[in-house]
Amino acid sequence: MSQPSSFEPRDPHYKARVTESFGRQPAMSTLGASLVSVEPGMVEIELAYSPEITQQHGFVHAGIVSAVIDSACGYAALSLMPENTGVLSIEFKVNLMAPAQGDRFRAIGRVRKAGRTIYFAEGELIACHKGSEKVVATLVSTLMCVTNRPGVSD
Amino acid sequence: MSQPSSFEPRDPHYKARVTESFGRQPAMSTLGASLVSVEPGMVEIELAYSPEITQQHGFVHAGIVSAVIDSACGYAALSLMPENTGVLSIEFKVNLMAPAQGDRFRAIGRVRKAGRTIYFAEGELIACHKGSEKVVATLVSTLMCVTNRPGVSD
Amino acid sequence: MSQPSSFEPRDPHYKARVTESFGRQPAMSTLGASLVSVEPGMVEIELAYSPEITQQHGFVHAGIVSAVIDSACGYAALSLMPENTGVLSIEFKVNLMAPAQGDRFRAIGRVRKAGRTIYFAEGELIACHKGSEKVVATLVSTLMCVTNRPGVSD
Amino acid sequence: MSQPSSFEPRDPHYKARVTESFGRQPAMSTLGASLVSVEPGMVEIELAYSPEITQQHGFVHAGIVSAVIDSACGYAALSLMPENTGVLSIEFKVNLMAPAQGDRFRAIGRVRKAGRTIYFAEGELIACHKGSEKVVATLVSTLMCVTNRPGVSD
Repeated sequence: MSQPSSFEPRDPHYKARVTESFGRQPAMSTLGASLVSVEPGMVEIELAYSPEITQQHGFVHAGIVSAVIDSACGYAALSLMPENTGVLSIEFKVNLMAPAQGDRFRAIGRVRKAGRTIYFAEGELIACHKGSEKVVATLVSTLMCVTNRPGVSD
Repeated sequence: MSQPSSFEPRDPHYKARVTESFGRQPAMSTLGASLVSVEPGMVEIELAYSPEITQQHGFVHAGIVSAVIDSACGYAALSLMPENTGVLSIEFKVNLMAPAQGDRFRAIGRVRKAGRTIYFAEGELIACHKGSEKVVATLVSTLMCVTNRPGVSD
Repeated sequence: MSQPSSFEPRDPHYKARVTESFGRQPAMSTLGASLVSVEPGMVEIELAYSPEITQQHGFVHAGIVSAVIDSACGYAALSLMPENTGVLSIEFKVNLMAPAQGDRFRAIGRVRKAGRTIYFAEGELIACHKGSEKVVATLVSTLMCVTNRPGVSD
Repeated sequence: MSQPSSFEPRDPHYKARVTESFGRQPAMSTLGASLVSVEPGMVEIELAYSPEITQQHGFVHAGIVSAVIDSACGYAALSLMPENTGVLSIEFKVNLMAPAQGDRFRAIGRVRKAGRTIYFAEGELIACHKGSEKVVATLVSTLMCVTNRPGVSD
């Protein structure tokens, strides 16, 4: 997960495009997530801790952990897609390595491979707790670049 | 996914235990999810449609789809665990087969194998739209039966 | 996994096509696997036990378990694809529920969803041991219907 | 995937232990795989190209790709396990990013997290073709450290 991204965006307006699409995700604001940075093939989202997103042991719910990493990966992929396309997650797999405990969380998504139709991305969630950082979950996802599908445009 | 469950619960109070633990998941009420049924090794959760849980195309966010199926699978596993234990998802994998569009959604989780420590579960999300039903996502998860871990008890 | 398949093949010669392509998989004969049945959206492969495919505890190696279920799923998908296309696995996830011990093994692959480009399949490996049967592994895979790619035709 | 490993082995004889256990995997020699290096939490396996391990398009079969990465991850985990235990893969997920074409292949497995019972590992397969290298597949796996199970000892 440590190489700098070396992807060339095909849409020169990729930052505005990702930012605008993220703004149209009500789920992200419901969960308390905000967009932090957009680079070609790499996106970071911050999630604030709130009791409202926890499960029964007081940790952030595994599904919500997944939601923010999935969004980071999806927008990392979108940042590389040509104009007039949209992004859809086909599937993802998340490993829950430690309880998601912290004051705030950083979800980082990176494109691993950008094909014509299929993108592979890798992401992780870093818990920030009293000044230290710890990776608590990793995610790998497969995404699709969708063209000409009504209602799916980013 | 169609066989009736044939598991014997080891905790006679499994229904109350699952119901009580679900009630301590603020994430579920934040998302608009409620517990519908608890049988040995099988749990159903209902998710109401709300614009607040959608992504940028108006479908329910893939991560939120995952969250409710993961909870259904987790509680299906918990329904079979001995007293004085807790349940943790170790990992899960979700397939997003169709956009999550509907008036309401049914998440069903079923235990596929109950080991001493490791449980495998399978789940799906059914979208209910204008009277018809359609499976829009499937999930497989691995869960752990945790004993004597401070803070992890259900 | 229990519904009968209700898919309509688009290629009337799907059985011959799958059989012929399977015959061009040297890996399958190296592992001792043979094609048992081909229905629209469903394929069964048999794997004979042999010490040569085991891991260090004497069970069939998890990767070889995956290989035969992956092939069953891939050919289940191919059975539904239009003429002049090829099938590629994009990704798969396998759950290893019990040691793969037996005299012989049945790998069954079923298409769960057939899209235009993307197919989802589900499979399992059944160990046959002294007259009884037991599911020892499950697999979910994502496959792609490939058109006009040199070298990828089935 | 690029950080050097910083794990401390608990078994001082971890190299001999991994080497000896690998030698007891007939599947690896059947596939043409050999052990290249063993470090604490990291193992490399080499796979020679052979027509006998290919699928119908002439690429190495996805399941065989998985088998060697799974073994690399499993032995990376075993290198960190205490004496008198054994390693079992619980589940894994493989992404097939490009056709596995090459003269030979390097499978590298690295432990991502070593718990008491559960280990997470990440691996990849690098195709070496006419002097250049390319990652063609990635794999994430969950492994279990097994104690006192008859027949499962490494």
